[in-house]
Amino acid sequence: MTRSQLTEQILKKKTYLCVGLDTDLTKIPAHLQGQPDALFRFNKEIIDATLEHCVAYKINTAFYEAYGTRGWEAMEQTAAYIPATHFKIADAKRGDIGNTSSQYARAFFETLNFDAITVAPYMGSDSVLPFLEYENKWTILLGLTSNPGAQDFELQQFGGEYLYEKVLKTAAGWGTEENLMFVIGATQAEAFDRIRERTPRHFYLVPGVGAQGGSLQAISEKALLPDGGLLVNASRAVIYASRGEDFAREAGIIAHQYAAEMARYLGTGIPTNF
Amino acid sequence: MTRSQLTEQILKKKTYLCVGLDTDLTKIPAHLQGQPDALFRFNKEIIDATLEHCVAYKINTAFYEAYGTRGWEAMEQTAAYIPATHFKIADAKRGDIGNTSSQYARAFFETLNFDAITVAPYMGSDSVLPFLEYENKWTILLGLTSNPGAQDFELQQFGGEYLYEKVLKTAAGWGTEENLMFVIGATQAEAFDRIRERTPRHFYLVPGVGAQGGSLQAISEKALLPDGGLLVNASRAVIYASRGEDFAREAGIIAHQYAAEMARYLGTGIPTNF
Repeated sequence: MTRSQLTEQILKKKTYLCVGLDTDLTKIPAHLQGQPDALFRFNKEIIDATLEHCVAYKINTAFYEAYGTRGWEAMEQTAAYIPATHFKIADAKRGDIGNTSSQYARAFFETLNFDAITVAPYMGSDSVLPFLEYENKWTILLGLTSNPGAQDFELQQFGGEYLYEKVLKTAAGWGTEENLMFVIGATQAEAFDRIRERTPRHFYLVPGVGAQGGSLQAISEKALLPDGGLLVNASRAVIYASRGEDFAREAGIIAHQYAAEMARYLGTGIPTNF
Repeated sequence: MTRSQLTEQILKKKTYLCVGLDTDLTKIPAHLQGQPDALFRFNKEIIDATLEHCVAYKINTAFYEAYGTRGWEAMEQTAAYIPATHFKIADAKRGDIGNTSSQYARAFFETLNFDAITVAPYMGSDSVLPFLEYENKWTILLGLTSNPGAQDFELQQFGGEYLYEKVLKTAAGWGTEENLMFVIGATQAEAFDRIRERTPRHFYLVPGVGAQGGSLQAISEKALLPDGGLLVNASRAVIYASRGEDFAREAGIIAHQYAAEMARYLGTGIPTNF
């Protein structure tokens, strides 16, 4: 998916919500738990119920790998079920030496046909470039994450700048605003002004709204662009909105609430620095 | 596997070789390429032929994920086939927020029963700790890697020390010498003295010998401990020693050559700082 295709969806539907499919068999409704294809059945109903309120889905690979081959199969089924109108993200945090990153790129861009994959920056350029070589595919590099451990390295000073700033600055030279996004956690709202200043046109994938406590309003005010520029992810808050048989309907309601709030920010809260 | 069990194998067999199963269907012998379970069949023959010359196997998850569910199944079969005498490493470079890293730990330590997994440090403590909670399992954290991209961040100065040194120092407090190893690339031989000084008793997983050009002699002289303290990995140099029907026999010969060299270093080249 190209940037203009993604942007078109955001502006048409007035939402920049990404629904995170962190599907855990111990947390899905009881009536699905015994089913052999419970993971996919749960995801399918969630997708059907949230489709009109979001522009992207993010599949967290860890939750599928925990179930081995059966889980990987559910991930394939889920990825195939997401319609082409929606931006499909493999939240996989991969990254290795060049010949290995090439294999990960094949896995997620070719075999599974995702539009985007999250990538860890630690190993540097040759661990990231194989992902950037694919046309109309996106690399979403970890910048400043939403978890407490961000303090350990990302927020350490590094020759006058934070490590995550060094990562943003360096990586911005590897890709373009048409194939490279950054992960910026919603719990880091106070840093968003500074980050937007340094990467004025990049899209950010923003996890941490909902269960992790980040504020949708704060990050939207600071980082929304006229063409979107943000994909804000909610996982647990949406998919586990109810543990009953009405789980999909309740997920749809929560997704709609996020989307309604986003429509307001898209209508009024747009900064003028685009 | 505990450190003393691993060490016992190293001293008994006089080898600290790890064979890397980076199995690529386009590079395996022609007579196997048409087979439906070619990935596993290739690995099985490689394992049979190298078993006596190595103490560990490292499965590079990227090469299996590239084939989707079928590849994941071959990874499960391969992991199950490696005997309990051998240290079984998932070279997966995982790492995410706590609740997600817990799922990766389940995937690789429980579902697939690996002894160890490689983990990326960027996201900090809570992305690593879920792996360290498992008894008799190992976390192998990226320290200084073998690829050119190590220059971009790992080898940047960070308040008077390199980023990778900050990572080693910080992470050493998260685990112990009984459950935490570091990845140190063989191409970084000039840094090994300094690294051994700072982490005098940790095991290192050392990739980069063979195809990537690192010197087994140099890193052994600098970092071998009386109980081993090193697992030196060779992947392509061993598994693709021949593309013919004799591939397994040739892999065994190359593995034996590495092991014979290692036996010499274990016999004579041991530093006294243990």
